[in-house]
Amino acid sequence: MKPYAEMSREELEVLLRQLREEYRHFQEMELQLDMSRGKPCREQLDLSMGMMDALYSEADLSAEDGTDVRNYGVLTGIPEAKRLIGAMMENDPDNIIIYGNSSLNVMYDTVARAFTHGIMGSTPWCRLKKVKFLCPVPGYDRHFAITEYFGIQMISVPMTEHGPDMDMVEGLVAEDEAIKGIWCVPKYSNPQGYSYSDETVHRFARLKPAAKDFRIFWDNAYGIHHLYDDDQDYLIEILRECRSCGNPDLVYKFSSTSKITFPGSGLAAMATSLNNLQDIKNQLKVQTIGHDKVNQLRHVRFFKNFEGMRKHMRKHANIIRPKFEVIESILEEELGGLGIGEWTKPKGGYFISFDTLPGCAKAVVDKVKKGGVVMTGAGATHPYGLDPEDKNIRIAPTYPPLEDLKTAAKLFSLCVKIVSAEKLLKEENDD
Amino acid sequence: MKPYAEMSREELEVLLRQLREEYRHFQEMELQLDMSRGKPCREQLDLSMGMMDALYSEADLSAEDGTDVRNYGVLTGIPEAKRLIGAMMENDPDNIIIYGNSSLNVMYDTVARAFTHGIMGSTPWCRLKKVKFLCPVPGYDRHFAITEYFGIQMISVPMTEHGPDMDMVEGLVAEDEAIKGIWCVPKYSNPQGYSYSDETVHRFARLKPAAKDFRIFWDNAYGIHHLYDDDQDYLIEILRECRSCGNPDLVYKFSSTSKITFPGSGLAAMATSLNNLQDIKNQLKVQTIGHDKVNQLRHVRFFKNFEGMRKHMRKHANIIRPKFEVIESILEEELGGLGIGEWTKPKGGYFISFDTLPGCAKAVVDKVKKGGVVMTGAGATHPYGLDPEDKNIRIAPTYPPLEDLKTAAKLFSLCVKIVSAEKLLKEENDD
Repeated sequence: MKPYAEMSREELEVLLRQLREEYRHFQEMELQLDMSRGKPCREQLDLSMGMMDALYSEADLSAEDGTDVRNYGVLTGIPEAKRLIGAMMENDPDNIIIYGNSSLNVMYDTVARAFTHGIMGSTPWCRLKKVKFLCPVPGYDRHFAITEYFGIQMISVPMTEHGPDMDMVEGLVAEDEAIKGIWCVPKYSNPQGYSYSDETVHRFARLKPAAKDFRIFWDNAYGIHHLYDDDQDYLIEILRECRSCGNPDLVYKFSSTSKITFPGSGLAAMATSLNNLQDIKNQLKVQTIGHDKVNQLRHVRFFKNFEGMRKHMRKHANIIRPKFEVIESILEEELGGLGIGEWTKPKGGYFISFDTLPGCAKAVVDKVKKGGVVMTGAGATHPYGLDPEDKNIRIAPTYPPLEDLKTAAKLFSLCVKIVSAEKLLKEENDD
Repeated sequence: MKPYAEMSREELEVLLRQLREEYRHFQEMELQLDMSRGKPCREQLDLSMGMMDALYSEADLSAEDGTDVRNYGVLTGIPEAKRLIGAMMENDPDNIIIYGNSSLNVMYDTVARAFTHGIMGSTPWCRLKKVKFLCPVPGYDRHFAITEYFGIQMISVPMTEHGPDMDMVEGLVAEDEAIKGIWCVPKYSNPQGYSYSDETVHRFARLKPAAKDFRIFWDNAYGIHHLYDDDQDYLIEILRECRSCGNPDLVYKFSSTSKITFPGSGLAAMATSLNNLQDIKNQLKVQTIGHDKVNQLRHVRFFKNFEGMRKHMRKHANIIRPKFEVIESILEEELGGLGIGEWTKPKGGYFISFDTLPGCAKAVVDKVKKGGVVMTGAGATHPYGLDPEDKNIRIAPTYPPLEDLKTAAKLFSLCVKIVSAEKLLKEENDD
């Protein structure tokens, strides 16, 4: 089939009648599929069921330093858990705080603390007239929800295959003291699956922000979430890089085991400089006596060490790789060469990013929904839910069973075709 | 022995020499005991080891509504956990949010949310010139630490056996719009072990605060933590009482299983009106996708129902009751009739409160520490760590083994005697 843009009005009309007929068939199937969020599927969760046996009534629940993990105390985590998570994050255990079950919660609390108490002695953000964050787009809706909730003005920065547009980032942070942070998902980014290049990380570590309390919010959610054994992205470790160029306190790095063990029952953590850690601990000790150390020990006993975790991640990859591949192959089969959509082909992470023709994303997602498949709302990948070109759609392939996913991908492709054809026809009419 | 105040200077001097000699014996023992915090002891923790078997690799980790508790979602808790915790808190499951592992964290977050976003549409506290809290004293140091951290001015309100001085509470909240909250531990209070009387609860529920966003922070930490089967305090349920007198949104009620299962790995919860819940959920959904549902299910499977939890609490009581009793009997034996100290005799909770002669508490705690036993710092039971009369000391009997506790109680009594005798002698000298 030839590109839609090259079709005549008549060809498009014939095509559209045919596509609408196909769509009716989908509607008759009364599908009820959910492709909206980056949720692991049941088979992935089953991989970690052994963790439920890692602790048992006869087990010794002492940490290696003798701490009874059942009791109060230990603000930043037991040593062996900090070592495991440190290995996962490529950071020294001394730079780690292990929190509760949600890295989102850690990020929220980090913004909230800056808002009420400032960062390392600087003015609390709640006392400033204006606070701004840079938001690489497309990006993660829950990041944007936090900054929006705190009334922080969000400035979109375009993503490239190599990371955010660093000329723009460098320029903005250097000139505007109101810019206090940037949201980054540096590896297998949400939603595009891009990983920041060496140059991008180098430039991040060398940023010269006007604001002393500017921090990079480095959400390394997919650090070890590869799809392939032999074709993996590599990301330079940012803390070390920052330290080596004299910017040790520039970054808060977040991670969790949410997509390694169980999404609501994993370990979330932050890695940052000792100065930042001290600043955080001054607040954290008021907020809590300590996080769930039993769950920390449970994770350590289950994985034993980081090699155990890496092996475990290969099992995840074996389950979700076919899902990514089936989506990609259906998109190629259905939409390849038509000039009505572009999509990413990530080597890890949880998402595929799809760009429609400008002005089509909302209509596509609506149409897919009426066909029985829920996707992430169009616009969600942009601050305030506003995609100025209305073209980006996030595809989350992990949760539905493979067969459902095929159906969903076909429905999705069909809706892209219908909405694109309608748009092109309307443009011809408008001419 | 006669009351110290009736002793002559010579008698006191002889006595003091003798007491100091005794103290040297204690020092030679090189004790290293910790009576500083309300921590369960090892035997108490062992009671909940069965919980480690409640979930296992072959178990079905579905909630009763079919939710896979391993995955993301469910902001306020799974139904069966809300029912269990609802029964524990004497509240409808619909009024419950189950959080993570720490009710302190929930209280902190509640203050932080009011600070950054206000309560039900009113001005965020960070934009007000002055925010004040009432603090019944003696009270819980970690409550005071939260309000102090947020720069909230704390106003002490004296505790009585029946609860805070309600004339003072009513007067203050009615006249001062800057007063936004009051910290309460209404049952087996920290540190006195007093429970609020029916009249006190009635008057709390009928408060007419000048501030629309005034809330009672009702930390019912010891709701089912009785020492005796046949002699228990009873507390009127505050939410129902507030609702029935037209003040439904007046209270945030907190509780947890920290001292039921494992401190650090229990369930924390809030119970409040549906209006307050909605207000909270608007924020909570930005902060997290959900708390640890696996741990919620683990608790439910372990206890089965509230009756299971009540039986479990009797086992706790059997372990810690002798500890309270041995302290009380040693205090009576050593200090009874001497007129140099008064102490409470709680029927539940985790603490005994001790009042020395004015001006002696710090010196006693210091002397006990030099003798090898760490107690809660004197002053900790008051806002800003300042006990104006320097007389209140919190005794935490649960953690040390019974034999150690006897030694500690004897050392403590001895130090009270020494410091009191020194004080009386000094006063005679000053005359």
